[in-house]
Amino acid sequence: MSENNLLTPRADGRTPGQLREIRLTRAWQQAGEGSVLVEFGNTRVLCVASITEGVPRWRQDSGEGWVTGEYSMLPRATSTRNQRESVKGKVGGRTQEISRLLGRSLRAVVDTSKLGPNTIVLDCDVLQADGGTRTAAITGAYVALAEAITYGKEHGWIKKEAKVLTDSVSAISVGIIDGRPCLDLPYVEDVAAGTDMNVVMTGTGEFVEVQGTAEHGAFTRSELNELLDLAEIGNARLAQLQKECLLSSPGTTVIAKVGN
Amino acid sequence: MSENNLLTPRADGRTPGQLREIRLTRAWQQAGEGSVLVEFGNTRVLCVASITEGVPRWRQDSGEGWVTGEYSMLPRATSTRNQRESVKGKVGGRTQEISRLLGRSLRAVVDTSKLGPNTIVLDCDVLQADGGTRTAAITGAYVALAEAITYGKEHGWIKKEAKVLTDSVSAISVGIIDGRPCLDLPYVEDVAAGTDMNVVMTGTGEFVEVQGTAEHGAFTRSELNELLDLAEIGNARLAQLQKECLLSSPGTTVIAKVGN
Amino acid sequence: MSENNLLTPRADGRTPGQLREIRLTRAWQQAGEGSVLVEFGNTRVLCVASITEGVPRWRQDSGEGWVTGEYSMLPRATSTRNQRESVKGKVGGRTQEISRLLGRSLRAVVDTSKLGPNTIVLDCDVLQADGGTRTAAITGAYVALAEAITYGKEHGWIKKEAKVLTDSVSAISVGIIDGRPCLDLPYVEDVAAGTDMNVVMTGTGEFVEVQGTAEHGAFTRSELNELLDLAEIGNARLAQLQKECLLSSPGTTVIAKVGN
Amino acid sequence: MSENNLLTPRADGRTPGQLREIRLTRAWQQAGEGSVLVEFGNTRVLCVASITEGVPRWRQDSGEGWVTGEYSMLPRATSTRNQRESVKGKVGGRTQEISRLLGRSLRAVVDTSKLGPNTIVLDCDVLQADGGTRTAAITGAYVALAEAITYGKEHGWIKKEAKVLTDSVSAISVGIIDGRPCLDLPYVEDVAAGTDMNVVMTGTGEFVEVQGTAEHGAFTRSELNELLDLAEIGNARLAQLQKECLLSSPGTTVIAKVGN
Amino acid sequence: MSENNLLTPRADGRTPGQLREIRLTRAWQQAGEGSVLVEFGNTRVLCVASITEGVPRWRQDSGEGWVTGEYSMLPRATSTRNQRESVKGKVGGRTQEISRLLGRSLRAVVDTSKLGPNTIVLDCDVLQADGGTRTAAITGAYVALAEAITYGKEHGWIKKEAKVLTDSVSAISVGIIDGRPCLDLPYVEDVAAGTDMNVVMTGTGEFVEVQGTAEHGAFTRSELNELLDLAEIGNARLAQLQKECLLSSPGTTVIAKVGN
Amino acid sequence: MSENNLLTPRADGRTPGQLREIRLTRAWQQAGEGSVLVEFGNTRVLCVASITEGVPRWRQDSGEGWVTGEYSMLPRATSTRNQRESVKGKVGGRTQEISRLLGRSLRAVVDTSKLGPNTIVLDCDVLQADGGTRTAAITGAYVALAEAITYGKEHGWIKKEAKVLTDSVSAISVGIIDGRPCLDLPYVEDVAAGTDMNVVMTGTGEFVEVQGTAEHGAFTRSELNELLDLAEIGNARLAQLQKECLLSSPGTTVIAKVGN
Repeated sequence: MSENNLLTPRADGRTPGQLREIRLTRAWQQAGEGSVLVEFGNTRVLCVASITEGVPRWRQDSGEGWVTGEYSMLPRATSTRNQRESVKGKVGGRTQEISRLLGRSLRAVVDTSKLGPNTIVLDCDVLQADGGTRTAAITGAYVALAEAITYGKEHGWIKKEAKVLTDSVSAISVGIIDGRPCLDLPYVEDVAAGTDMNVVMTGTGEFVEVQGTAEHGAFTRSELNELLDLAEIGNARLAQLQKECLLSSPGTTVIAKVGN
Repeated sequence: MSENNLLTPRADGRTPGQLREIRLTRAWQQAGEGSVLVEFGNTRVLCVASITEGVPRWRQDSGEGWVTGEYSMLPRATSTRNQRESVKGKVGGRTQEISRLLGRSLRAVVDTSKLGPNTIVLDCDVLQADGGTRTAAITGAYVALAEAITYGKEHGWIKKEAKVLTDSVSAISVGIIDGRPCLDLPYVEDVAAGTDMNVVMTGTGEFVEVQGTAEHGAFTRSELNELLDLAEIGNARLAQLQKECLLSSPGTTVIAKVGN
Repeated sequence: MSENNLLTPRADGRTPGQLREIRLTRAWQQAGEGSVLVEFGNTRVLCVASITEGVPRWRQDSGEGWVTGEYSMLPRATSTRNQRESVKGKVGGRTQEISRLLGRSLRAVVDTSKLGPNTIVLDCDVLQADGGTRTAAITGAYVALAEAITYGKEHGWIKKEAKVLTDSVSAISVGIIDGRPCLDLPYVEDVAAGTDMNVVMTGTGEFVEVQGTAEHGAFTRSELNELLDLAEIGNARLAQLQKECLLSSPGTTVIAKVGN
Repeated sequence: MSENNLLTPRADGRTPGQLREIRLTRAWQQAGEGSVLVEFGNTRVLCVASITEGVPRWRQDSGEGWVTGEYSMLPRATSTRNQRESVKGKVGGRTQEISRLLGRSLRAVVDTSKLGPNTIVLDCDVLQADGGTRTAAITGAYVALAEAITYGKEHGWIKKEAKVLTDSVSAISVGIIDGRPCLDLPYVEDVAAGTDMNVVMTGTGEFVEVQGTAEHGAFTRSELNELLDLAEIGNARLAQLQKECLLSSPGTTVIAKVGN
Repeated sequence: MSENNLLTPRADGRTPGQLREIRLTRAWQQAGEGSVLVEFGNTRVLCVASITEGVPRWRQDSGEGWVTGEYSMLPRATSTRNQRESVKGKVGGRTQEISRLLGRSLRAVVDTSKLGPNTIVLDCDVLQADGGTRTAAITGAYVALAEAITYGKEHGWIKKEAKVLTDSVSAISVGIIDGRPCLDLPYVEDVAAGTDMNVVMTGTGEFVEVQGTAEHGAFTRSELNELLDLAEIGNARLAQLQKECLLSSPGTTVIAKVGN
Repeated sequence: MSENNLLTPRADGRTPGQLREIRLTRAWQQAGEGSVLVEFGNTRVLCVASITEGVPRWRQDSGEGWVTGEYSMLPRATSTRNQRESVKGKVGGRTQEISRLLGRSLRAVVDTSKLGPNTIVLDCDVLQADGGTRTAAITGAYVALAEAITYGKEHGWIKKEAKVLTDSVSAISVGIIDGRPCLDLPYVEDVAAGTDMNVVMTGTGEFVEVQGTAEHGAFTRSELNELLDLAEIGNARLAQLQKECLLSSPGTTVIAKVGN
C-alpha cells in the first residue's frame, strides 16, 4: 500500500478506518416483540423479532428453543428494481445464504437451552440498500432479539432469571479498495473491492464468522490480517452503540456519527 | 340504525364519518423515481415507483406505456407473523387480488399513450398493518406515480408537455359496524364488519372500483347507498391531501388529523 | 344515454335488460354429490359439489363446517388456447380471485354451524367461455351445493332438520356498452365495456358482492345506480330458474329463453 | 382359465370380449378447431384440438409441424375428489405419462412434414372417470385431430392436397380379471386386474404402443397373446366408429352399443 | 427382414441377439444398505437401496411395507449437458415415468406383507448414459434391493425367515434397427430404432412390464413376437448374472462379456 | 490446548496436521470435456466439466467467457437418505451456497477474457459424503476445468496460445476439535467441531476464500491464525497432487496417502 493511498480520503470523505454514520431506532414498528430500524449510511434495514411458542419439528425432542433469521430486500431497495422472489417463486441463493448467516450469527450468542420451547424469528427487510446490508441486518437483529427476550420474560414465555444471551453480536464489512484495506464499504466500494470480507464478532471481541472472498485475484495472509484489524475496530464501536440503544427509550434513535 | 348507535363513538373515539390520522411523507426512500410513506393511523405502507424503459411483451406493438403495481406485506406487519410468500414459493390469492386492483386503479387515471414506451411499477410494501392496507397503498401509490412521472419528464423519458395523468386517484374502506356505516376501518372494525367495501375514486369524484363484500349475511340497497356516501367524503379529503403532498418538499410529512 | 342508443338492439339482438338464454342441467355428472351444467348463452360451466368429512385445519376447533370453491378454465374454453395452470406450475391471479369470490358468495347463504364438521367444495370448470363465466359459476354452484346438502342429509352427514341454506344466491354481470347499461355481457361486450360489474345477490334481493371496475375512465354514481337496477332484474330471474331446477328430476335441463 | 370362468358374465353383464357402449359426439364444443366428447361407458372425456401457427423452438429448423397432447382430469371426475394439479403446483407423474403417450400415439399416424409449420395440441380433459380414460382420450383425440386438419385445410393453414394422416389410431385396455382376459375394463375391473394392458393400434391393424403391466405377480407369454387378440378386436370396432363419426354431421352422437 | 440384414454385424460388432458387456459391482458405495454399480456397455448407473422404518401415509393402515424407486440422470451423463431438474424446479415427465416403472418392476417380485412396516427406496442415478439406462437401473436395483433385505434381516428390521423376494427381476431393451430386431440398444441404435421396447421379466421367465413404442410408423404382431423372443434371451442372461453377483463378495465386479 | 491433546491421535489415527488419503482419477467419465473422480478419504465427488458455446445473457456484451459450478449430492450419499431437491422442487440454501462458492473459487484463477465466448460448467455430484465435500469438489473441479480448457484448445473453441488459467486452486477444511486445530475434517469431526473453516487457496499460496464459522461459541484471533497455518499446509499438498494428476494419463488414479 503506497503512502499516497493512506492520505487520500475515500469517495465519501471517510478515512479507511472510519464507519459510516450508524443509526439505531428502537421500537420503530409496533407489531413485533422487538424491532429496530438500523441504518449504516444510506443502507436501511428493518429488523423485527417474532417470538412464538413451539420449535421446528426436528428440534422438538431437544427441550431447547430456536432462533432463526430471514433476510430479504424490497424490490426497489437498490438503484434498479429487482423482481420479487415471491413472484419468481423461489428464494435466490444470495438471500438464502445471508439468511443462514444471520441465523448462525445470532445463535452464537444465544443459550437456546435457556430459551424455553420457543422460537424467535428475526425478519430483516432491507428498505434501502447501499452496501453492507447483511452486516447492518445482523447488527440490528441483535438489538431486536434482545428486546424480544425482554418481552418474553415480561410475559412469562421465558424464565425471568434465565441468562439467554451470552454476549452481544455485530457485523461489519471490510475490503481492499485501490489496494488499501477499508472499513464499512458502501455499494460503490463494494463493487470495486478486489477482496471483500464480512466479519461477525461478539461484544467481547471474539470471532463468530469470517467470510472473505476474492472475486478478482487473491489476497495475501498479511492483507487478511490488516482487514481483521479494521473489523475489530468497527465491531467494537457497533457493540457500544447496541448497548446504548438498548438503554434508550422506545422510539429513540441513537447515532454514531462518522469519526465518532 | 338506532339513534343510540349514532351517538356512540367508535372504539378509537372517531365518529362514523371520520378518517383516521392520515400522513403522507414524500421521498421517504431515495432509490425509487418516486416514493411515499403513507400512514392511515397505524397502517404504514411504503410506496416506491420504478420507471423503466420498455413495456411487457404483450404490449410491445401498441406504442403505449404501462403502469402496474405489486402489493406485499412484510411477514411481521401484523400481530402474528405470516410466512413469507417467497419462502412458500407462491404469491397468495389475496396478494395477487390486491396487486391487480392497485394496477387497475392507477391505470384509470393514466393516459398510457402519453407515457412513451415506458413501464412504471408501483411497489407497495406494508410495513405495519392495521386495516385498510390496500386503500392506503392506492392512495400513496398515486403520489409516488406522480413523482415518477415528473422525474421521467425531467430526465427525458417522457415528453415534457405530455398530460399523462388525467386525474388523481385515492381509495378508502367503508363498512357496517354494529349496524352503522363507518369510514376507514382499522383492523378490529374490519374483522367485525358485516359488510366491507373498498371504494376507489378519482379526484373529480367519479368511481374507479367499488368492491363490496358481505361475508356474514347480505346488505340492502339502502345500506349500499349510505356506504357510498361515506366513501365520497373520505376520498375527497384524501384527494386534497395528495395535492398538498405533491406541493410539499421532499422528505416532508403532510398530515390530516382526525376530524380535520 | 341518447334515445337512439335505447332503441338499437345489442349485437346478439337482445335489449339492454335481457338475459341470454340460461340453461341449468341437474346431475349432468354422476361422480359428485351434486352437479350442474350451467349455460349462459355459449358460456358453459360444469359445477360439481364434493362433500367430505373434516374441515380445514385452521377451522378445526370451531365445530363448524366449511364451504369453498375452485374455479378453473379448460385450456381451449376460449377462442385461443391458454396454457394450463398445472403446466405453468401456478394458479393465476384471475383464477384465484374468482375462486375466492365463488367461496365467499356461497358462504353468504350457508349457516356453517348447521353443516356439521364437513367441507363442501364446489369445483366450477369452464368448458366453454363466452363472457360471464364467474357469474354462471356462482349461479350453477348454488344448485350443486343445494343438491349436495340434500345428499348429505340423506346419507347422515348432515342433520335432517338442519336449515343449512339461509337463502339462494346467484350472480350476473352488467356493464356500460356504448354508453348504455346492459345486462349479462357476452365476451364481445365484456371487452368493449367501459365499466363492468359483477353483482352477486340473494334470492330475497339483497347484495352479497358488488364488484364494479372501470379499466377505461371512471363511472358516475348515477351510472352505478342504473347498473344495480339491471342486476336486480337479472338476479331475480336466475333465482326463479334455480328453484325450478331444484324441483326438476336429475338429468333434466331447465331453460329460460331470451325475453322470458 | 377354467370353463366356468368363460361362462360367467362380467359384473356389468358383458362377455370378456365385449366393449362397453361407446359414444362419440362431434363438435360438442365450439371454441376448438376440432372437438369430440368421447364416452366409453361412464368414462367421459372432452377432446379439443387447437391448431396454431409455429412449432416448439427445438423443432423450428425442421420445416415440419408438430402434434402434441395434454391429458388432465377434473378434480371430481372420480368417486373421491383429487386436489387440482394447478393448486399443487405440479403435474403428477401419471398425468405426464399419459400426456406423452397421447402425443406419441397421434404422431404415429401423422406425417408432420405435410403439416406445414403448425402445431396441433389435443387437450383431453376427463369429465367423468370410470376406467380406460387414456384409451378413450386417444380414441376421441384422433377424431378431433382429423377435424382440425380439415379445418386447417379449409382455412389455408395446411395444403389442401397434403396427406397429413397416414392412418387412424385408437386405443383400448385389456386385462386379466379373475384369471380370464377381458376387454375394455371399467374402474372396478381395472383395480382388480392382475395384469393390465393398454394397446394403441392403427386402423389397419398395426401396433403403435403396447403397455402391459403386472402390479401383482407376472404374466405368461400365452396370456400376453390372448390379451393382444382381444385388443385387436376392440380396436377394429373403434376404428370403424371413428370413421362413422367423421362422416356424421357436427353435434351428432354416433353410438356402438354393447355387443354391437 | 432380408437375409443380408441377418448377416451384417451391428455398428459395435455385436450380432442382433447379443447383449453388450454387462458389469455388476456390489457394494460400490458404503452409505446405502445395498448398492450396485451396474454397467451395460458405456451406460453406468449407481443403484443404492435405503431402508427406513415406516411407510407412506396412504399405506399406514395396511400393515405392509413398501418399495419404491427414484431414477435420475446427472446433468452431464449424456453427450450434451442437460439442466438439472432441481434447478428447473420440477421433475420431468420422462424421469417420473421411469421412476414409476422402476418401482412397479421391483414390487412385482416383493411380497410387501413380509417386509414389515418398512420402506425401501432404490435410488438409481445415471452417471453415464449410452442407451438402456432404465433397463440397467432395474437390473442393478434388484441386486441392491436383495442386499438391503439381507441387511434388514441381519439388523432385525425384517424377520429372518420372511420370504420377501418371490423371484428376481431384470429388464432389457429390444428394437427394430434397419428392419431387424436387435437386443440391448446403445444410444445410436435407440435413436435410429423404428420400434423400441423395454421388457421387464422375472428370473422364472414371466413378464412384468412390456412397453413397446413406435414413434415412426407402427409394428406388426409378428415383429412384436420376434422382439419378445430376443428379450427372453437377454433377461435370462441377466438373471444369471444377478445371481452370481449376489454370491460374490462386496466390492467385486461380475462381468458378462459380449457373446458370453 | 493441553499438551495431552497434542499427543492424542485423532479418531482415524491421523495427527492434527495430516490430510486423509486423497485420490484423483482423471477421465473417470467419458461424456464431459473433462472429468475427475476426487476422493478425500471416504468422501467421493464426481466432477465433470462441460464446455458450451455462448455465455449467460447478462454477460453477452462483455466479449468474455464464463465459468460456473453446480454442486449437488445424491440422496443416499450420506448415512441417512435425503429427499431429492428435484422432487422437493427447489434447491436448498446449502446447495446454492456451495455452488456459488465453487463458481467463485474457480473464476479466481481463470482469465475469462481469454476464454472466448464460451461457458464452462463444472458439475460436482457427491456420490458418497464423509465431510469436506465442498473442498473435495473445488479441488477436483479445478482438474476437470484444466482438462476442459485443453480440450477446448484442441478443438478450436479456445485460442491455443491463450493463458486462460492464471494459477491452480484447491480447498481444504480445518476446524477446532476438542480444543485443538485439525486439518481435513471427516463427518464425525465436522459435527463435533466448535469452529469450522473452509479455506480456498491458489497454487501460489494466496487466499481466495476464507469461510470460518462458529455455531457453538466463538473463536479467538490466535485460533484463527492456527487454523490458517494448517490450511496452508493442506492446500500446498493438494496443489502438488493436482499437478501430478494433470500429468498422468486418462483413467489413472494419483494418490496421496496419509502422512505423505
